[in-house]
Amino acid sequence: MKDSAMIIPSYEDMLTAHERIKPHVRRTEVRRSAYLNELTGADLFFKCENFQEPGAFKVRGACNAVFGLDEAQSAKGVATHSSGNHASCLSYAAMRRGIPCNVVMPRTAPQAKKDTVRRYGGRITECEPSTSSREAAFAEVQAATGGDFVHPYNDPRVIAGQGTCSKEFIEQTDGLDMVVAPIGGGGMISGTCLTLATLAPECQVIAAEPEQADDAYRSFKAGHIIADDAPKTIADGLLVPLKDLTWHFVSNHVTEIYTASETEIIDAMKLVWKHLRVVMEPSSAVPMACVLKNPDAFRGKRVGIVLTGGNVDLDRLPWMV
Amino acid sequence: MKDSAMIIPSYEDMLTAHERIKPHVRRTEVRRSAYLNELTGADLFFKCENFQEPGAFKVRGACNAVFGLDEAQSAKGVATHSSGNHASCLSYAAMRRGIPCNVVMPRTAPQAKKDTVRRYGGRITECEPSTSSREAAFAEVQAATGGDFVHPYNDPRVIAGQGTCSKEFIEQTDGLDMVVAPIGGGGMISGTCLTLATLAPECQVIAAEPEQADDAYRSFKAGHIIADDAPKTIADGLLVPLKDLTWHFVSNHVTEIYTASETEIIDAMKLVWKHLRVVMEPSSAVPMACVLKNPDAFRGKRVGIVLTGGNVDLDRLPWMV
Repeated sequence: MKDSAMIIPSYEDMLTAHERIKPHVRRTEVRRSAYLNELTGADLFFKCENFQEPGAFKVRGACNAVFGLDEAQSAKGVATHSSGNHASCLSYAAMRRGIPCNVVMPRTAPQAKKDTVRRYGGRITECEPSTSSREAAFAEVQAATGGDFVHPYNDPRVIAGQGTCSKEFIEQTDGLDMVVAPIGGGGMISGTCLTLATLAPECQVIAAEPEQADDAYRSFKAGHIIADDAPKTIADGLLVPLKDLTWHFVSNHVTEIYTASETEIIDAMKLVWKHLRVVMEPSSAVPMACVLKNPDAFRGKRVGIVLTGGNVDLDRLPWMV
Repeated sequence: MKDSAMIIPSYEDMLTAHERIKPHVRRTEVRRSAYLNELTGADLFFKCENFQEPGAFKVRGACNAVFGLDEAQSAKGVATHSSGNHASCLSYAAMRRGIPCNVVMPRTAPQAKKDTVRRYGGRITECEPSTSSREAAFAEVQAATGGDFVHPYNDPRVIAGQGTCSKEFIEQTDGLDMVVAPIGGGGMISGTCLTLATLAPECQVIAAEPEQADDAYRSFKAGHIIADDAPKTIADGLLVPLKDLTWHFVSNHVTEIYTASETEIIDAMKLVWKHLRVVMEPSSAVPMACVLKNPDAFRGKRVGIVLTGGNVDLDRLPWMV
């Protein structure tokens, strides 16, 4: 997508995205646990986006961008930078359409995520794990390939695609009081705001962020975007800062942002693995960590939690270190 | 259940069980993976019994036994011996009915399984990890409490309950060429035979067993029950031998028994965790290990695999040692 004035996706864009991507993504299960409900006093619903074939919700936005390209654009393929799941999901979408995909990825990204990108035919260029290095490396790659830039989150096609998750979530649960999702760059949260503002305006949107990468929290409190270069957290999907388009949704629609420490994230991750018996990433555990940390905000409510991804390195689980 | 001549459960007993247990168990999801299909050349369907609230298919048989008791019987509660999942599932069923549950359990059973039994109100008596010690300890407990003995597998109520899993599996998949399930004492396999013999007689039943606890395999080849005392395998749900009732089903209906080594089981376990993103026990990985080891037997077929349980100690995963 060419640089341009900010284009804010509409509810109709989300509906179009949902029809477009249906053949390529799963309508993922919503799982429940009597034990976790008892523990929190809340009625918890877990949307298992870790069950998407490439293991993350980002397949929704990626497929919407890739399958929305016209023939001429698609010939040069797509390109992106990503800390992991957007990379594999864009590669997966491009593979399904049979077009090239170039990816700039931090060299520190989990090996499991690099392997997945390559399995789907994505070509990886490595960079240092900072926003500045990533953007410089990407400019080179894009100049060389001419691929259509699909930003991991600050792209209206991507946000419209991510918004399809909440549409299914509301349909599958007969309504929720709030949806809690992790926030990194803000793609999932923006899509959630986009969809719920029309479909379920009474449903609150809560963002959950690692304390050690709390730029969205500080932005939300300050009223303008604050970006950190190279924060460090085990929630490696949440390292990137908000951008103008996601800030639009966060500043206008999000009810609250909560944060959790690394230890709280790991404890929540083990708890959900144990009682829901699903494999999910540290990033996906941040919402549950925030629910456990702020019980009064959730008790007695119907709470939807988005399990955003499930690509972990099983040989390097956070509690094994 | 009192000692008596062998009572073979019927297809109608399974249908009755299904109605009886419906309020208490989940109709678990069937999951798929394009990657695992490509890897094996088979069309794989995974029935996620690890997603039952207490984490194992054994909740089916346990609920059928507990909710089938008359009022007089139920006052003294139930009692059993189990390497783990039957214990927690029987405790869970008893808790739901509000009756006592006494359990004899090997002291070496995973801590996670003991914790679960206690969480559901089960009272544990520990024994040594051998069939002989287990049976001696159980005789004492039963004499003291008078609880109705619900054997972990050699009980027609239990087998009829386990058979409900295959009924759902066939309904959810529109038919399968074969179902592969792990075999320990043979409860799941017997229930599978019971149901498929009537519902889908063309569907093969394949059992999968650890090489290091291959008494069912040797029994199958010899034509009579061979029982080992205290075999050792990481598949701790599969330590127990066949008994007369399960041998009836195994010897009459099972097509083949395959075995897998400890390393093959661990590799299959990691592979399924990674690509299906579900947490399952080593026992549940034995079918996938056998599919990978005998590709010609499964290629091009619609293969149902029962993921029997998901109660693992996350601090002691087999590949962490």
